[in-house]
Amino acid sequence: MSVSHQNVVIRNIARAERAVVDGLAVAGVATVHEAQGRVGCLQSYMRPIYPGARIAGSAVTISAAPGDNWMLHVAIEQLQQGDVLVLAPTSPCDNGYFGDLLATSAMARGCRGLIIDAGVRDVRDLTQMGFPVWSKAISAQGTVKETLGSVNVPVVCAGQAIEAGDVVVADDDGVCIVRQADASAVLAAAQKREAGEEAKRKRLAAGELGLDIYDMRPRLADKGLVYI
Amino acid sequence: MSVSHQNVVIRNIARAERAVVDGLAVAGVATVHEAQGRVGCLQSYMRPIYPGARIAGSAVTISAAPGDNWMLHVAIEQLQQGDVLVLAPTSPCDNGYFGDLLATSAMARGCRGLIIDAGVRDVRDLTQMGFPVWSKAISAQGTVKETLGSVNVPVVCAGQAIEAGDVVVADDDGVCIVRQADASAVLAAAQKREAGEEAKRKRLAAGELGLDIYDMRPRLADKGLVYI
Amino acid sequence: MSVSHQNVVIRNIARAERAVVDGLAVAGVATVHEAQGRVGCLQSYMRPIYPGARIAGSAVTISAAPGDNWMLHVAIEQLQQGDVLVLAPTSPCDNGYFGDLLATSAMARGCRGLIIDAGVRDVRDLTQMGFPVWSKAISAQGTVKETLGSVNVPVVCAGQAIEAGDVVVADDDGVCIVRQADASAVLAAAQKREAGEEAKRKRLAAGELGLDIYDMRPRLADKGLVYI
Amino acid sequence: MSVSHQNVVIRNIARAERAVVDGLAVAGVATVHEAQGRVGCLQSYMRPIYPGARIAGSAVTISAAPGDNWMLHVAIEQLQQGDVLVLAPTSPCDNGYFGDLLATSAMARGCRGLIIDAGVRDVRDLTQMGFPVWSKAISAQGTVKETLGSVNVPVVCAGQAIEAGDVVVADDDGVCIVRQADASAVLAAAQKREAGEEAKRKRLAAGELGLDIYDMRPRLADKGLVYI
Amino acid sequence: MSVSHQNVVIRNIARAERAVVDGLAVAGVATVHEAQGRVGCLQSYMRPIYPGARIAGSAVTISAAPGDNWMLHVAIEQLQQGDVLVLAPTSPCDNGYFGDLLATSAMARGCRGLIIDAGVRDVRDLTQMGFPVWSKAISAQGTVKETLGSVNVPVVCAGQAIEAGDVVVADDDGVCIVRQADASAVLAAAQKREAGEEAKRKRLAAGELGLDIYDMRPRLADKGLVYI
Amino acid sequence: MSVSHQNVVIRNIARAERAVVDGLAVAGVATVHEAQGRVGCLQSYMRPIYPGARIAGSAVTISAAPGDNWMLHVAIEQLQQGDVLVLAPTSPCDNGYFGDLLATSAMARGCRGLIIDAGVRDVRDLTQMGFPVWSKAISAQGTVKETLGSVNVPVVCAGQAIEAGDVVVADDDGVCIVRQADASAVLAAAQKREAGEEAKRKRLAAGELGLDIYDMRPRLADKGLVYI
Repeated sequence: MSVSHQNVVIRNIARAERAVVDGLAVAGVATVHEAQGRVGCLQSYMRPIYPGARIAGSAVTISAAPGDNWMLHVAIEQLQQGDVLVLAPTSPCDNGYFGDLLATSAMARGCRGLIIDAGVRDVRDLTQMGFPVWSKAISAQGTVKETLGSVNVPVVCAGQAIEAGDVVVADDDGVCIVRQADASAVLAAAQKREAGEEAKRKRLAAGELGLDIYDMRPRLADKGLVYI
Repeated sequence: MSVSHQNVVIRNIARAERAVVDGLAVAGVATVHEAQGRVGCLQSYMRPIYPGARIAGSAVTISAAPGDNWMLHVAIEQLQQGDVLVLAPTSPCDNGYFGDLLATSAMARGCRGLIIDAGVRDVRDLTQMGFPVWSKAISAQGTVKETLGSVNVPVVCAGQAIEAGDVVVADDDGVCIVRQADASAVLAAAQKREAGEEAKRKRLAAGELGLDIYDMRPRLADKGLVYI
Repeated sequence: MSVSHQNVVIRNIARAERAVVDGLAVAGVATVHEAQGRVGCLQSYMRPIYPGARIAGSAVTISAAPGDNWMLHVAIEQLQQGDVLVLAPTSPCDNGYFGDLLATSAMARGCRGLIIDAGVRDVRDLTQMGFPVWSKAISAQGTVKETLGSVNVPVVCAGQAIEAGDVVVADDDGVCIVRQADASAVLAAAQKREAGEEAKRKRLAAGELGLDIYDMRPRLADKGLVYI
Repeated sequence: MSVSHQNVVIRNIARAERAVVDGLAVAGVATVHEAQGRVGCLQSYMRPIYPGARIAGSAVTISAAPGDNWMLHVAIEQLQQGDVLVLAPTSPCDNGYFGDLLATSAMARGCRGLIIDAGVRDVRDLTQMGFPVWSKAISAQGTVKETLGSVNVPVVCAGQAIEAGDVVVADDDGVCIVRQADASAVLAAAQKREAGEEAKRKRLAAGELGLDIYDMRPRLADKGLVYI
Repeated sequence: MSVSHQNVVIRNIARAERAVVDGLAVAGVATVHEAQGRVGCLQSYMRPIYPGARIAGSAVTISAAPGDNWMLHVAIEQLQQGDVLVLAPTSPCDNGYFGDLLATSAMARGCRGLIIDAGVRDVRDLTQMGFPVWSKAISAQGTVKETLGSVNVPVVCAGQAIEAGDVVVADDDGVCIVRQADASAVLAAAQKREAGEEAKRKRLAAGELGLDIYDMRPRLADKGLVYI
Repeated sequence: MSVSHQNVVIRNIARAERAVVDGLAVAGVATVHEAQGRVGCLQSYMRPIYPGARIAGSAVTISAAPGDNWMLHVAIEQLQQGDVLVLAPTSPCDNGYFGDLLATSAMARGCRGLIIDAGVRDVRDLTQMGFPVWSKAISAQGTVKETLGSVNVPVVCAGQAIEAGDVVVADDDGVCIVRQADASAVLAAAQKREAGEEAKRKRLAAGELGLDIYDMRPRLADKGLVYI
């Protein structure tokens, strides 16, 4: 007997506005993460399979058994233009759940990428197709299709709780999650932050010190820093 | 600017009934985990500092900066009889956030133990005091009190999303979380499961095979298993 | 289409003589490992669930899918008095494949222990039953019974190639494998080694130096060691 | 006294046909792995030092002491055109056993690459020379030439048992081993699989779902998947 | 050609006073670490082979090649009553460098224990002998005697720079280093700290909160902590 | 009370001559490491954020609390043309301490790169700016500015003891440290070594074997190597 809601596919999920999502992609992971109060980053072992990709999209979440990629087929049907697949295995696994055939299918439905706390394969093909993946591992080890999981339920992926419809932002620095309801406010904060940084960048490039720009010297002295 | 709710202490949290919590401790981690549909386990690196402890309690959650144990002092004030502290650092850290003084304080308020996705120290004293801890590490490395965190907000601890008031079950097999609202139903399921296992245990001890008790042979043959 | 021999159970395997197996248990892992030319150790992450167990037995090997313990039921039928179960998942996994019910069944058939490159649970019960396990992890995370594997085929377990019938020696230092055909010769070598050590132990306890007992000084000087 | 066959160099090993080996390189790791029944992959931590290399070759195996690369010199003499070096240390080590001088020597004898469950160095030079390496680590830490090992004996490399003459297939997805005796059959199975995938790729690209192409819906419903 | 001072044995090293060393053992790792300004801890993966040991001693340091324990024999000759052996391999290694024969020899010369950033074996014997070891691994994998190292040179062991004669403090919380020249001052600071803790322990046990004892509430409010 | 020298900034440090530093960059990590007797390499997990960078510079060292990048601002003021920043956290941390703004500031002061035993972010920008970083992780997770550390004190970074002014050499093979006082001698040894290698490279490329060039056959036979 199970008391939890398992083995379900939730069809209707709320998504953030497309323009907001796209704005978050432009802002990038580090800025978005800071703008929302320094939360939302997945663990740093989640790395892109190729450099240079920068995406944001609405999460279609997948909870899958270790070594079983059946639910990916189920999830792909739930994709809408601009979504990102997010797969969390129910226990640690580095199998290659996803390869070029699934990517072909996902791209055909408008999917922008995959975040997977497990392995991926056919990375050469995925690179050529321009389908970005952030994963724990690259592995050719195949999977079975025997055990059910769920789609669009809350998952924990690489240390971060993610709900369906949350905005996934991913680039060379890793992956960050923005709650669907916070997306507009975070975008505004990110853009404000970005604007402020430009001026600082110029002053720093000209040789001014952060110690002075941010007026750190008095507080450092107060705390007891000693120059010898 | 931060759009997330950070740096808060939530005072009033719902807790499961004491009798239910205590029943879950008796059932133990493995049984509870199976009874609720094979979910809720923290990562296996969470190990008890001494063998033999078996507890359950209501989670008082702590989100803390790496290397900063200030929020533990804040959280201890929120403890009620029968609670368990659950600390998740905002990024990976193995510092010793907790030792015998904090344990003395927590025990004085009825705390049953600590679950910490980081380090703990004074383990010899904690063992003598009978204050159990499940942790990622044992480390004497001390911490500071400089950065705020939050108490009783949702956290991800060792791969599991935990909310304040969720029931923490912990023993030599590790740690499992039961949603506060599910606690009674999970206890009932666990007790039923336990009852069923006793009969099987006797048959297995008498030499009967699981292959026969669970009638596995036809399905194995169907799947193609070959005996040579 | 598969060209490898998968999903088979090999019923008849050669085993080493019982007296030889028992002698290897007495010699212990470190001595046996040295006696056979410093080979055969499993990786050092394989740790006993409780201290003090010292066993040797004939390997009944299991190749199992990640998160699937079905083949354990199949393997238990193949056990003979004095055997040891050896489970290698086909990809890295730390699930708790084995607990007290399976141990009850295995013990009823004369099994001496389990070596598993994955997780085990109910460790408190297993300790009380005196059923020793050397594992990669302790984990309550349960498994399914969906995917076939094989029994008594060659496996790689924790970095060591093991064939059915090979002698497994395990104690607090870890696990070592002796080829079935080499067992007698290794036992003889181990006993000879043991005998030689006793005399050295006495001389060392009396304060004599290994530098002198083993006549190391000339070779150290030749290699260029300088005392300052 | 040692009872195992250590410190040997086996000169004559059986190799698969060159055309078969080359065909396996074209098929690639993921396809070959699936075609032979989902076995043979090395652990996923084995990564290429540069992207894009795709090779297959006959394994010349090396068992070497930690931090000792002497046997590489011995092994290079045993290389034939189309071979791949496979080095497994006798215990975990990440030293840089191999660099540009050894690569120059190996290439001069027709070697196609190196698979090493340890470290490699001079990776910039190796990249410019087009000598591919799949390794556990990149490390400049040098090694000594003091302890014998063996060449062309069975080894366990990154979790996979490998014999001299087995076919090594390696690309951006990692490394897979095909038994020498199975090579032709696996190639045939791989080519058949490849052919089947092309048709599916087109249907998926056109928007058809795997759920329908593979007729998964009835089985998902049977297992209890619920759409909400 | 080597420009560093390698392959040397330094005979005469300064040691802290015995009474100071013994006082540091009583204070224990956590207290000593805090007393000297929160520095000196080795990485948390260094664990005792059995619980309950509490030692301090003067470091006799060893720099050894991976998989080569020759220098341990050399170092034992340099031991004086009250010393502790500290071994750092020149690259990561988990081999069992040390077992019961070496422990017998070291104990005969007054050695109090071993700190080794590698493996140890014969742990059952060492436990019975009461010879404590803090190590990265327990492993039966044997070593050779082929490559020179050095004794009593500065080493980095488990993340900490250690010089010969530094005081090693080790207990169930791990290992901490005190510079030889600082030993008296650190002992005084540790004893003062210990005294201060006793009063706090009583107040905390009586239910007073750290928030009040340490007057944390104003600073928490200043930083912006909000109670809901 | 603290007895160690903490929270200091040391302003005047000795640096090696610029020409020597630049010569070491040309020689590269592997050659320099060998030339100085096979010492000085940082752990192999320290990887460049982009391939192809080859630098050497004088170390400006930073000891920083986990998750706190305040000291980077302090250190940047201490930079001189040709320096390299070296940051070691006081306990393991993978936060992104450093990004494009700090890089802009460091570059404005002539800094050649960063070695950090923690995380870095904005790697796309850093790559475009040509500011190389060798790090343990890439992570967008931000840091605070609350806790003091020190600048130009001795640190242990990725397993290597480093003092301010030591020469850092870094390329695709990782990072190596040369003591400031040894720099000229090591450069001479490196250049001599380089010269010797060129001749060997040609002979090896022509098909001569290392076995013959280095006259290894007699010693291999002496040690007992057997050809079968």
